[in-house]
Amino acid sequence: MIEDISVRFFDSFKERKLLSPVMVEGLPGIGQVGKLVAEYMIHMLCAEKIAEIHSIYFPPHVIIEENGVVRLVRNELYLYHAENQDVVFLVGDYQSTSNEGHYILTDQYLEIAAELGIQRIYTLGGFGVGHFVDEPRVLGALNRPELREELEAAGVVFQRDEPGGGIVGAAGLLLGLGALRNIDAVCLMGETSGYLVDPRSATSVLSVLCSLLNVTVDPTQLNDRAAEMERMIEGLIEGEKIQSNDELSYIG
Amino acid sequence: MIEDISVRFFDSFKERKLLSPVMVEGLPGIGQVGKLVAEYMIHMLCAEKIAEIHSIYFPPHVIIEENGVVRLVRNELYLYHAENQDVVFLVGDYQSTSNEGHYILTDQYLEIAAELGIQRIYTLGGFGVGHFVDEPRVLGALNRPELREELEAAGVVFQRDEPGGGIVGAAGLLLGLGALRNIDAVCLMGETSGYLVDPRSATSVLSVLCSLLNVTVDPTQLNDRAAEMERMIEGLIEGEKIQSNDELSYIG
Amino acid sequence: MIEDISVRFFDSFKERKLLSPVMVEGLPGIGQVGKLVAEYMIHMLCAEKIAEIHSIYFPPHVIIEENGVVRLVRNELYLYHAENQDVVFLVGDYQSTSNEGHYILTDQYLEIAAELGIQRIYTLGGFGVGHFVDEPRVLGALNRPELREELEAAGVVFQRDEPGGGIVGAAGLLLGLGALRNIDAVCLMGETSGYLVDPRSATSVLSVLCSLLNVTVDPTQLNDRAAEMERMIEGLIEGEKIQSNDELSYIG
Amino acid sequence: MIEDISVRFFDSFKERKLLSPVMVEGLPGIGQVGKLVAEYMIHMLCAEKIAEIHSIYFPPHVIIEENGVVRLVRNELYLYHAENQDVVFLVGDYQSTSNEGHYILTDQYLEIAAELGIQRIYTLGGFGVGHFVDEPRVLGALNRPELREELEAAGVVFQRDEPGGGIVGAAGLLLGLGALRNIDAVCLMGETSGYLVDPRSATSVLSVLCSLLNVTVDPTQLNDRAAEMERMIEGLIEGEKIQSNDELSYIG
Repeated sequence: MIEDISVRFFDSFKERKLLSPVMVEGLPGIGQVGKLVAEYMIHMLCAEKIAEIHSIYFPPHVIIEENGVVRLVRNELYLYHAENQDVVFLVGDYQSTSNEGHYILTDQYLEIAAELGIQRIYTLGGFGVGHFVDEPRVLGALNRPELREELEAAGVVFQRDEPGGGIVGAAGLLLGLGALRNIDAVCLMGETSGYLVDPRSATSVLSVLCSLLNVTVDPTQLNDRAAEMERMIEGLIEGEKIQSNDELSYIG
Repeated sequence: MIEDISVRFFDSFKERKLLSPVMVEGLPGIGQVGKLVAEYMIHMLCAEKIAEIHSIYFPPHVIIEENGVVRLVRNELYLYHAENQDVVFLVGDYQSTSNEGHYILTDQYLEIAAELGIQRIYTLGGFGVGHFVDEPRVLGALNRPELREELEAAGVVFQRDEPGGGIVGAAGLLLGLGALRNIDAVCLMGETSGYLVDPRSATSVLSVLCSLLNVTVDPTQLNDRAAEMERMIEGLIEGEKIQSNDELSYIG
Repeated sequence: MIEDISVRFFDSFKERKLLSPVMVEGLPGIGQVGKLVAEYMIHMLCAEKIAEIHSIYFPPHVIIEENGVVRLVRNELYLYHAENQDVVFLVGDYQSTSNEGHYILTDQYLEIAAELGIQRIYTLGGFGVGHFVDEPRVLGALNRPELREELEAAGVVFQRDEPGGGIVGAAGLLLGLGALRNIDAVCLMGETSGYLVDPRSATSVLSVLCSLLNVTVDPTQLNDRAAEMERMIEGLIEGEKIQSNDELSYIG
Repeated sequence: MIEDISVRFFDSFKERKLLSPVMVEGLPGIGQVGKLVAEYMIHMLCAEKIAEIHSIYFPPHVIIEENGVVRLVRNELYLYHAENQDVVFLVGDYQSTSNEGHYILTDQYLEIAAELGIQRIYTLGGFGVGHFVDEPRVLGALNRPELREELEAAGVVFQRDEPGGGIVGAAGLLLGLGALRNIDAVCLMGETSGYLVDPRSATSVLSVLCSLLNVTVDPTQLNDRAAEMERMIEGLIEGEKIQSNDELSYIG
């Protein structure tokens, strides 16, 4: 019988002991902000993959990779050794397809965190504001009031009752269910339109997170991608304006 | 493995013995009538929180409270010591997101009721009539015919086959499943349009419930909120009329 | 913990032994044909209720009955002692709300049938044809070819590949899952428009079923209801015609 | 209690030992391509049915066959003895109705494969391209890179990142979950419009599969069906053209 969730740590990892580990969650969500940040850090820091997570709560399909080789949709754990602490990244293709699955998967992530001795979790996400934002702020949420001061010092903004709809999925439940396990957890949300993948918002979150983790990550490639995206959007808007003018001249 | 439902009684409560306890359920529903009444009573009577209930059947998200601290969506139990009996309030953010979850959660509420020695449950709700009601009546339903006389004496109206669609969710299932456990349960439903949160309907239910519980709760604040709501609605209607007149004069 | 399905036989029934029992299923479905037939027979034969079935797969609500007393939505078993055999009727408010629940509930019905020693099941339903039918035929389906002859002798029509969409829900699964348990089962489907509750179709099915069971049930009341329904439909059509004429004269 | 999935091997099969067996999956999917190929091969090779699979994850209904006899919707296994190897076909009426069910059913198929000693699985499907294709290619995916060369030699095309949406359902999961069990699996997808049942696409897949299995199957009947389908489509397009011309002449 298939397990509801299977967590497979790689043999290369099994013996290792972690040093003051923290977890960074960047699963898909609003504007893909969290996913962009976590995957960019994994890429730039050459973090090492240590585990794969499969689940019947993920969509029932496979992804085709290079050479036609498929793999199940999955979540993954990556490990990076920073100077004074180890960072475990949780990333992946999807979150749960069902309400119950969100709870059950997040509980499993916390089980992993507990096994690895993780005492703090950073969850990353986007905060949809419905319009394009030039200089996206990073809003914060946390599961223990004492964490706030440190976050504010790193530039995180706390806005009363925002986001009003709460935080949906793993980024929120890791805080809520984490509190029941006495694991500190904070959510960093980059302001974003909510309409498009948003690397600009991701750069804001990246900057705050690096400061909190005391890790250096060159943001140039992410900035480039953001600039490219902005040119594309401007192009679209410009195109619409030209079209509007055309229409006017046509009418005129 | 996460429990489907977790009930956590606070340490402050654990030793206490209850005196002829009754339960009052006011979870979200039509016009938020039940929720308004129960939460207003908790507020005015300074009832004490004694337990929190989390469940994978609730929506998978967290709510952001003061200072950016999040909490899981949840149900809660509050306790108030009335003169001759203890009143346990069941309130919360949500009901189940699935059909099966409604049954499973209600069964858990009844399990709690049985453990606390509760012999009667009042469930509160709205009865949607599709139009605004000036003086909302309180309709009743019950799970043992002998309870009717006492309810009618308190002003509850019984109308044949109403509500025709039955009573959905915990407010209904507590009666239905309660009967199988020999726990008396009655449902008090305030007439309401069904379109808006309805504090006017809530004042009617509050008045009947206080009489049944032999508890005094000053309804002023709830009345004020109802009056405010009514001014707002009148304003909207007035606005529409003015607009209509404008349109007419424009046409004319 | 609540059971997924609970079957409660009444104390009055428990000791009794059944004589060559058969089961008649008339749960809600197309045109409510099966439900009309089974409930009419229960009424006319003064069959005795012997059990109630509750389930988390039914919709999560209660129904309000006389005097404001509620009851859980449910399925019920009734017993009628015919001359040479006992007839157990399976009727109720709803079928399952989920796909999986249909299988699980039907398996439970068959478990009951096996316990009661039932060797044959008649399931009743409507066969939607998309237009009104003056003299509805009764189509048949079965789970053992040898049963066909007896059914045809009773007036049941077998039409190749009809209904093309198969038979959905308990009326079909009792045959399919029944075969795996070696319980004979046949489905009797009255032709019906599929748009309205159809007592005319029910009279056809009633007549065939009574012949098969060798039971006499006076169809007068069901015929009356069918005639009433037909007058109502004719009234509606007539009304439309008048309206059409009006429109024409108005245009003219 | 009903099993979530039941696999019933026929008595005639139970003693038999298989020779280097492979599995061919052809369940319903895009353009019914896989189903057409597998069922055509079963028919032409007179493969023998060896097992039936029922499940609560299939739709809750029965199918009416000859003489009014119904059967549960199901999946089936057929066996064909080729010269140097045995071929087990997995075909059926439906795939799972739920996300979780897809995983659980596929896991069961792999359990069967493991029990039968199957070392390679071919899954068949359609690859929707959104327009009619005259000479459909056969795209491939696999769960071990070493399998690619053999497939390319048989005419299978590998196209980077295609299909971009991945492969949904059993055809994909057999590869993904199969890899975790060290069972080789490849998916053969015929290009198809995605709008209609596509026997033309099926002939392409059939040809490649026969070459891979070193089996000879006369494609004439499938070709005839494809030609008939194409005449029908041309007729429809022609009809539309005529209608368009009519409209033009009417306007003119």
